[in-house]
Amino acid sequence: MSDVLERLAKVLSERRHANPQVSYSGKLFSAGLDAILKKMGEEATETVIAAKNGKKPELIHELADLWFHSLVLLAWFELGPAEVLAELERREGLSGVAEKAARPLPKE
Amino acid sequence: MSDVLERLAKVLSERRHANPQVSYSGKLFSAGLDAILKKMGEEATETVIAAKNGKKPELIHELADLWFHSLVLLAWFELGPAEVLAELERREGLSGVAEKAARPLPKE
Amino acid sequence: MSDVLERLAKVLSERRHANPQVSYSGKLFSAGLDAILKKMGEEATETVIAAKNGKKPELIHELADLWFHSLVLLAWFELGPAEVLAELERREGLSGVAEKAARPLPKE
Amino acid sequence: MSDVLERLAKVLSERRHANPQVSYSGKLFSAGLDAILKKMGEEATETVIAAKNGKKPELIHELADLWFHSLVLLAWFELGPAEVLAELERREGLSGVAEKAARPLPKE
Repeated sequence: MSDVLERLAKVLSERRHANPQVSYSGKLFSAGLDAILKKMGEEATETVIAAKNGKKPELIHELADLWFHSLVLLAWFELGPAEVLAELERREGLSGVAEKAARPLPKE
Repeated sequence: MSDVLERLAKVLSERRHANPQVSYSGKLFSAGLDAILKKMGEEATETVIAAKNGKKPELIHELADLWFHSLVLLAWFELGPAEVLAELERREGLSGVAEKAARPLPKE
Repeated sequence: MSDVLERLAKVLSERRHANPQVSYSGKLFSAGLDAILKKMGEEATETVIAAKNGKKPELIHELADLWFHSLVLLAWFELGPAEVLAELERREGLSGVAEKAARPLPKE
Repeated sequence: MSDVLERLAKVLSERRHANPQVSYSGKLFSAGLDAILKKMGEEATETVIAAKNGKKPELIHELADLWFHSLVLLAWFELGPAEVLAELERREGLSGVAEKAARPLPKE
């Protein structure tokens, strides 16, 4: 299922320079970086509001919006989710190491 | 590589009720929902700033922070990335249908 | 000139329960707290973008939007700018005291 | 009381190029525009959370933070609250005109 990020990224990458009239993302790319960033801010605020409302479907909806516009933003810079996931994976490794180091030493 | 979201979610789910002293996410869960939401707001703003600075590594770093805290927020509500990805997949299907409908009819 | 905040607050207070059709603020009150908060998030993001664009008129425009919606939010809770200004004044006094304390002691 | 904005702006303007060690605002100016903008995003998110918590003192506190950092941001660009208040006053005039025009015509 997590391939959906890569599939969406591929579609967005194709629309990056396509006819802006055809799709929502095409219009957003055509409107420019500031328009994409305004959407990021909007969706982040709506995520906070949804979480405070404590309604899980609303929260999932807003996080999907936030991640979708994250993919649009990445595509603007000719990047994709793989770069973000690699960064998370890198930290996961560091964190694993860090947590091991933080464990109390075994008694001899 | 995209399994990293699921792996991180599994770790976060385990830390949801664990000793808050051991890890960053433990401290965040212990601090409560408002603390998690403040981080969401911070990371979204830092993503906007990074994008305006036009520096790709800074942008990837901030989006990784934003997605990581999205996973923390999902774990707070006993949800995971699968729900968000399913919502994106559902829309992808709708969008596919919508785009087909928007295509000009083939000439007979 | 700074009376403009009080004058706007008075108008907003009157519109708080007035016909939502007549004015922008009436529509916003009618849409509810979440709608007002979404505008706060939007205007804050647009302020950040305007500042990064380094264009003073755009920044003043966005800060005016942010302060205006702050007044709408205050009116929603039957508060006004006086409470916020009083809080700032109180801090100003505290800060004055704190800064005096931080000054190097005069030589005898 | 509303003179507090002008008094704060005057202090901030003096600190704009002063020793960063002496005061909070001095440190913030020294840290640079991105640091100021991160604070704007933080305070806006905290305002949204406070409003959802429905606690008036928390809301006033966060709006005071947001307005204070707005003044810091204005001072960074060598602007002050007068410019924002003038923009609000200008709109107030326009809105007055617009609302008059929107009123139903009196019956003859």
